[in-house]
Amino acid sequence: MEPGQPVPREADVVVLRDSKTYTARVDIATKRVVEFGELKGAQSAFLASEMFGADAYIKKDARIIEALRKRGISDLRTVSCSALPVAYRAVPAQATERVGFGSCSRTHGTYHSWGRSIEGLTFQVDIAAKKVTSISDTDTVPVPTSEQNYEEIPDRPRPNTTPISTFQPLGQGFRIDHGDISWQNWRFRMRIDPRVGVVLNLVQIIDEGRARSVLYEASVSELFVPYMDPGNGWNNRAFIDAGEFFAGVGFLKPLKPGLDCPAGATWFDGQTISEDGAPRLTSRLACLFERAPENPAWRHLQGSEVYGRPSRELVLRSAATIGNYDYLLDWRFTPDGTLTVAVGATGVIETKSTTMTAAHDAHSGPETGQLVAEGVIGVNHDHYFSYRLDFDVDGTSNSFMLNRMVPQRVDNDPMRKSIWVNQPVVAAREKDAILDIRLDQPSMWMFMNPSVRSPLNYPVAYEVMPGATAKSILSGDDPVQRIGAFSEHQFWVTRYNEAERYAAGTYPTSSDANDGLAVWTKANRTIENTDIVGWYTLGFHHITRAEDWPVMPTMWHEFAIRPFHFFNKNPVLDLPKSLADH
Amino acid sequence: MEPGQPVPREADVVVLRDSKTYTARVDIATKRVVEFGELKGAQSAFLASEMFGADAYIKKDARIIEALRKRGISDLRTVSCSALPVAYRAVPAQATERVGFGSCSRTHGTYHSWGRSIEGLTFQVDIAAKKVTSISDTDTVPVPTSEQNYEEIPDRPRPNTTPISTFQPLGQGFRIDHGDISWQNWRFRMRIDPRVGVVLNLVQIIDEGRARSVLYEASVSELFVPYMDPGNGWNNRAFIDAGEFFAGVGFLKPLKPGLDCPAGATWFDGQTISEDGAPRLTSRLACLFERAPENPAWRHLQGSEVYGRPSRELVLRSAATIGNYDYLLDWRFTPDGTLTVAVGATGVIETKSTTMTAAHDAHSGPETGQLVAEGVIGVNHDHYFSYRLDFDVDGTSNSFMLNRMVPQRVDNDPMRKSIWVNQPVVAAREKDAILDIRLDQPSMWMFMNPSVRSPLNYPVAYEVMPGATAKSILSGDDPVQRIGAFSEHQFWVTRYNEAERYAAGTYPTSSDANDGLAVWTKANRTIENTDIVGWYTLGFHHITRAEDWPVMPTMWHEFAIRPFHFFNKNPVLDLPKSLADH
Repeated sequence: MEPGQPVPREADVVVLRDSKTYTARVDIATKRVVEFGELKGAQSAFLASEMFGADAYIKKDARIIEALRKRGISDLRTVSCSALPVAYRAVPAQATERVGFGSCSRTHGTYHSWGRSIEGLTFQVDIAAKKVTSISDTDTVPVPTSEQNYEEIPDRPRPNTTPISTFQPLGQGFRIDHGDISWQNWRFRMRIDPRVGVVLNLVQIIDEGRARSVLYEASVSELFVPYMDPGNGWNNRAFIDAGEFFAGVGFLKPLKPGLDCPAGATWFDGQTISEDGAPRLTSRLACLFERAPENPAWRHLQGSEVYGRPSRELVLRSAATIGNYDYLLDWRFTPDGTLTVAVGATGVIETKSTTMTAAHDAHSGPETGQLVAEGVIGVNHDHYFSYRLDFDVDGTSNSFMLNRMVPQRVDNDPMRKSIWVNQPVVAAREKDAILDIRLDQPSMWMFMNPSVRSPLNYPVAYEVMPGATAKSILSGDDPVQRIGAFSEHQFWVTRYNEAERYAAGTYPTSSDANDGLAVWTKANRTIENTDIVGWYTLGFHHITRAEDWPVMPTMWHEFAIRPFHFFNKNPVLDLPKSLADH
Repeated sequence: MEPGQPVPREADVVVLRDSKTYTARVDIATKRVVEFGELKGAQSAFLASEMFGADAYIKKDARIIEALRKRGISDLRTVSCSALPVAYRAVPAQATERVGFGSCSRTHGTYHSWGRSIEGLTFQVDIAAKKVTSISDTDTVPVPTSEQNYEEIPDRPRPNTTPISTFQPLGQGFRIDHGDISWQNWRFRMRIDPRVGVVLNLVQIIDEGRARSVLYEASVSELFVPYMDPGNGWNNRAFIDAGEFFAGVGFLKPLKPGLDCPAGATWFDGQTISEDGAPRLTSRLACLFERAPENPAWRHLQGSEVYGRPSRELVLRSAATIGNYDYLLDWRFTPDGTLTVAVGATGVIETKSTTMTAAHDAHSGPETGQLVAEGVIGVNHDHYFSYRLDFDVDGTSNSFMLNRMVPQRVDNDPMRKSIWVNQPVVAAREKDAILDIRLDQPSMWMFMNPSVRSPLNYPVAYEVMPGATAKSILSGDDPVQRIGAFSEHQFWVTRYNEAERYAAGTYPTSSDANDGLAVWTKANRTIENTDIVGWYTLGFHHITRAEDWPVMPTMWHEFAIRPFHFFNKNPVLDLPKSLADH
């Protein structure tokens, strides 16, 4: 596009009317509907009002009232019911209805209903008709009364903690100018997307005065959280958290100053779309702050003198709360060109009420979870985050290179019988770049620009460095796994396609699982020297423990990207010698 | 031992006389030699004077002088030569001599000789006889003149960094009382060992007023750093860094305030043994400081309110410099009972001079490394750290439990076809607990006390949580790999034996590799409900990059241990609500 030309402004619209979903594209400048049609084989994401608004009519259903009465519960003000979507077409009614899978919990005398599930009573609702269509009333389990209060701590806080604060007398070291964020040698833009949260754009590094591109765009793409209990009311719990929910609410939730970020952080508000389509501004959906981890960026002891430079980090943080779980979502920039992506999982685990008060044998309680309090099972589950990384390393046309470490025999040498050598291979097609971490077949994963060479004649590159992670071990034919198929592998590379943004598809809700990473890559497109996108799966299995109750200590998982022959030498030799210098 | 009884005080002595190593045990109280004998099949670690003292006589050897002259080097004041040990019996002379494997580098006009290796000229020396016994003079390679200065940065530091400091007006939140360190709910002792550095002892957690044991002892046990070049002068580079070196110097080196640790940290001096056996006190071999990473220890958004508590960490840090490499060695305590072990690798990479000035084809330079500057190859290598973790979870007798996640089919369910279940298995013998991370067969690794149950009837346990890591892919019959055999697996468990402290054996130097983890575990001892020790291998492959030159940006690798049904509930509910509270 030439300067001076008008910028086309179009918007994608999702319209939900009764049980039918329509999608449209509108041209904003000309106020024209460009496309319009009914969405087939899938539905729009669920609205909060559909999920929680169901409470009123569920509790008016005579069968529900009777089932609760049978459980000794007659005060319905102490019962909270909801209806959740399922991200795959599991029951025939989903073809024509918006089917909610419902259950209730008890809130009597508590701050919240976590840990108070009413088991054995589940039902399906027709969201549009606002009625309960079927009920399953199996085993009756007393609602636990174990302590689940974390809000209020009756005793005084633990003693012997002394105040600790970070002090930046001349202010923070970053600047924000019309949306351009600059910090040390980094430049980027960020925006808050209602569906996937913080999106980085135009991530660049200033290298000897020249702005060099690293990423065109990067964000969370999707989440997949399958639970591992086949029982009544649990078999449907396999959440596609970004795609199924948050229409009308937004993926991110407000951060708390002094807890989630330093009180002196810079805060970003975010625009979301309310359920009726009106814009809504929410405060503090992301924060930006510097921190000094007291680590050297580099150091060396030579003779009796230590040389080095202290490091610091720039953290761009947001938090998603998805019902019970809270995820802290970090992009951590360091001056050496490394960008670390971190997910901190905290919040409340999903629990199932049980008659068990203690584990029954020497080593375990139930096979599908762990008792975390008397009568409360923390159910086994997995978490998978798909990160979409649209690399543009020094330009749009990139290739994906595996630098394999290959064992080699050494003959006739008294000192050695083996080494490994590095053997780089450029992936020609998408199926060559579907990758899993294997300790016996190590390799480095790099996005490189075959047309831009370093002074030493290497293609300039950025490496993706996996952290501790997990992959799904569910069956490939499981409907849950078909929707969350991105979790089968740690890393994928696709040829850029504007329509491919969400790893489990654009419309996962009640869908046929015919969209998403595993579907796109079946085409096995060429990915050499063209615009390509990397998809990293950050995963972890979660067997719960007593320590996770009533609220989980934050558990972090990370991966990073870092320059590889991108700079000509160590790019942090010029850092100030002291954190006090400027 | 009863109170009032005298404490036996014995010392192990290693005596080096000419080429022979003797070991002795002396009773200090009675001034008596209890044991004395010649060490067979191995030698003592090398002394710094043996390695660097060789410079003088090497440069007097006529063949060396001639070989250097042939390379255009006649001013021997600009040449630095040394002789290194090899941790396996590779040449026959090692049976009777102390054999040093020698090479030289050039220091003309530079601060140091890294990146200035004189290739093609190697030699063996007889350390005791102080003479060069054989010479290998193969290819002649010019010494590179590429920039390798990091000490001095000619231009002004990068602009726009603002001062940042941590402020604790009431002092640090930990206390040290006669060697007992207490911080929040943690209690431990630490000492500095000349061979393996910081050793933690009696690591406990105060839980509702009761001191509960987690670890009896924990430290680095050994390092293994094999290089991957079979060429002249490189095939011998496979270092057993703790066991081969540092007799007379100590593994740890001084830390720099304001760089390695905050200036206001608490510093620990350490006693090492000088080469003649005299004690020597070295300042600042470890530091202890609190830091506030600005992360919540836990948080949850319920309704429109965020509840949570900010976290902080206690960091016990030391640094080892082993010639070119620097390792920052952290023990990071968090209030939730997690102890993170982290290694930050920085310093200078080992380089090989080459005639290459640029990579010759599209994707690579040499197969055995990467060009990092003109004429300078950063040689491929691995790093493996063995951590010895002597768990005593609520007592001495512990078992090692694998909690496997096992896929299971679900039949006749429209919602699901599969789940995974947790199946705990207690390892009966050492070979049942030799473990590698496999994403397709996930499991949790736990040290548990079968005799101490949580209120929910689970055995109390501590979990070992692996981080991103690597295992050796060298051949099992490689002499290098036989010595560094602990690197074949991520985790090992042994039955406690006082003599088993070093993963590659007590005396690896010039040895037959008949000691160490892989040898001990052949006995396949029972490990159930007894005193057991865990050995974690933290490993990483290193293909170098231009950014690693002339000094490496710090690269961190971590693993952690955390409570699992050890506490009755989340142990950090009582943290202060603000970092300013106390």
